[in-house]
Amino acid sequence: MDLVFLGTSSGTPTRARNVTGLALQEDAGKAWYLIDCGEGTQHRLLRMPLSLHDLRAIFITHVHGDHCYGLPGLLASAGMMGRRHPLEIIAPAGIADWLQATLRMSHAWLGYELAFHAVESLGEWRSLNMRVAATALSHRVPCYGYSFTEARPDPRLNIERLERDGVPRGPLWGQLARGFDLEHEGRTLRSEDYLSFTRAPRRVVIGGDNDRPPLLAEACRGAQVLVHEATYSQTLVETSGNTFGHSSAAQVAAFAQQAEVPNLVLTHFSARYQPGSQRGHSIEEIRQEAATAYHGQLFLARDFLRLRLGKDGVLHEVEPT
Amino acid sequence: MDLVFLGTSSGTPTRARNVTGLALQEDAGKAWYLIDCGEGTQHRLLRMPLSLHDLRAIFITHVHGDHCYGLPGLLASAGMMGRRHPLEIIAPAGIADWLQATLRMSHAWLGYELAFHAVESLGEWRSLNMRVAATALSHRVPCYGYSFTEARPDPRLNIERLERDGVPRGPLWGQLARGFDLEHEGRTLRSEDYLSFTRAPRRVVIGGDNDRPPLLAEACRGAQVLVHEATYSQTLVETSGNTFGHSSAAQVAAFAQQAEVPNLVLTHFSARYQPGSQRGHSIEEIRQEAATAYHGQLFLARDFLRLRLGKDGVLHEVEPT
Repeated sequence: MDLVFLGTSSGTPTRARNVTGLALQEDAGKAWYLIDCGEGTQHRLLRMPLSLHDLRAIFITHVHGDHCYGLPGLLASAGMMGRRHPLEIIAPAGIADWLQATLRMSHAWLGYELAFHAVESLGEWRSLNMRVAATALSHRVPCYGYSFTEARPDPRLNIERLERDGVPRGPLWGQLARGFDLEHEGRTLRSEDYLSFTRAPRRVVIGGDNDRPPLLAEACRGAQVLVHEATYSQTLVETSGNTFGHSSAAQVAAFAQQAEVPNLVLTHFSARYQPGSQRGHSIEEIRQEAATAYHGQLFLARDFLRLRLGKDGVLHEVEPT
Repeated sequence: MDLVFLGTSSGTPTRARNVTGLALQEDAGKAWYLIDCGEGTQHRLLRMPLSLHDLRAIFITHVHGDHCYGLPGLLASAGMMGRRHPLEIIAPAGIADWLQATLRMSHAWLGYELAFHAVESLGEWRSLNMRVAATALSHRVPCYGYSFTEARPDPRLNIERLERDGVPRGPLWGQLARGFDLEHEGRTLRSEDYLSFTRAPRRVVIGGDNDRPPLLAEACRGAQVLVHEATYSQTLVETSGNTFGHSSAAQVAAFAQQAEVPNLVLTHFSARYQPGSQRGHSIEEIRQEAATAYHGQLFLARDFLRLRLGKDGVLHEVEPT
């Protein structure tokens, strides 16, 4: 599983960081998921090996513009590139109405179907290889984190049962192994009845904007990676006296340490943390503060960063090819 | 007067060209006007010496997404940067409703006022230094071109009249010279009554998407510059058999030649005209086709191109500083 950071700035873009967008790519095949879609996300994709044809679903954490204003343009471009298969969007209910109104206003014809799911009543969303659950967070507007869990980690066919049930060896076995349910001689054969999994599923938890990281405690159980905003340093929060519904690096780090998540990726940094900032704020403030409280593997996201989570649960940076 | 091209691609962004955005900057002072605002326009501005504090008004040619999807993010960023003075938006009426709905949906608080003018009933829009008129064009949806004419080209005070009317020499004269009307001893002194202009005003005509360039004939009278889309070459149009409401390079060139506009800037090129395009289309096809029919000064726009129209009516490229 790869995480590809498309935007790591909070609120407004800077020259180095775009507003929020994050791709999660299945390691098998090219299917990927987009979590948040700030303005300019489609521009970032032009520079990455991620095609809008292979985009499986979009998850939006909340309605603030820096997390969703890129949706109409990205959807329109997918249509112009010839996408024809449906696209699922999991988002706060208000996003669906706004997107439809936007496409109508601009006379956009997508050429493919959009299927909306309101995150408020999501339960679990599933694709062939991924199960996704939402967790309500705490922000100035309703906001959700998404936990991505592998649905079928290294599946193995239960041959004994296949033979007992009289399923003939051949293509049917292959389809069941790839996760497809089948109709066969008037019976429904359910893939999951014939598969067992040979290792624990990988899990990545992606927080939205959130000033109470412990709300993700349950989601983080068994997770190898937590991606969470750290908009400010705690020092800055204490000076300004306002968090605007965001977390400080110290706060997230303390939670991740307590939750025993082995990998923590911080992102969504205030625009004041810029290379060569005139105002004397360096992203190293964030790193140092987090490293003091958190002793697992710490990453500070930057645009175009690709992190790979191996089947062994180890997370490491992958250089662009 | 400077023209700064922020996006020169039609429909979707490419790695080299963003979707449509064009800045027109007054040569005196830093005030500027934005014509169209495709997604990512605010990102382009981060790389140009154009501040959202100095943006005087935004003009939108039509509702297609590649001309307006960048509005919400640009307006939100202007607010976050501390803009407090009102901003005028001249656009098709549908844009105003959509923008308000978008800001409401995303809980965006701008911190400054938006003043909308429906282009359908614009008449003339005026700022201190610029008069802007709209021309209805021909496209798949209602679309408008905008003509920018200097309002006060090198004003000279009519001293004889000032003295005759008993206006005391000093700051009042200065204010009248800068274009401000005044109240003085119970009388309204109108700047234009005390000014004469020492040369013809410069005029730049900026077309929107349009398949009938001659609709701009009246607007182009006395204009030094026409900026017009040339989405395709005529050769391509004849092969594909569909213009999608756009102009070919040959069509625009023939019109500009006939209208005797001394400078023609082509823009809004189909994404197929890319450097190193696999499909064998080169932007040089556009240039050659236009140069065959048009014998004035021809420019093909590219992102970040700055063109300066001198008081002498000569247009030339300015290198970025």
